Amino acid sequence: MKAKIYVTLKQSVLDPQGKTVQRALEQMNYKNVDSVRIGRFLEVELACNDEAAAAAQIEEMSKKLFVNPNIEQFRYELEK
Amino acid sequence: MKAKIYVTLKQSVLDPQGKTVQRALEQMNYKNVDSVRIGRFLEVELACNDEAAAAAQIEEMSKKLFVNPNIEQFRYELEK
Repeated sequence: MKAKIYVTLKQSVLDPQGKTVQRALEQMNYKNVDSVRIGRFLEVELACNDEAAAAAQIEEMSKKLFVNPNIEQFRYELEK
Repeated sequence: MKAKIYVTLKQSVLDPQGKTVQRALEQMNYKNVDSVRIGRFLEVELACNDEAAAAAQIEEMSKKLFVNPNIEQFRYELEK
């Protein structure tokens, strides 16, 4: 089973990396960019056929290793 | 208009960061993880109401700034 996990900064947290990219775009003459926020995208292959078990494991691994819950949030999708 | 851009390493390119995370998971007793690959996820807000123009701009910005076409690939979604 394959999981796609999206980790993003919480809306209330400043994203200096995104701001830098936005400024770079302005200097490249893209003047209509209102905001850029940058997150992580993980693809995890699990040897597990049970969807509920896979979902539980992905949540657990995300909370323990992938995500900093103080400043980040995550969501995920499972694919067969 | 909001764009979500997913940047991932091409399948043929090794992902040492993903390997490191996979090894960390093994040490945490998750033995069923076959692969981990890590990419970037960008959320870009454009002041642009025309979907075709927004798509063209996102493609152009991705190729010029967000993506290294030698080793990475990208896909994106547009939302109103």
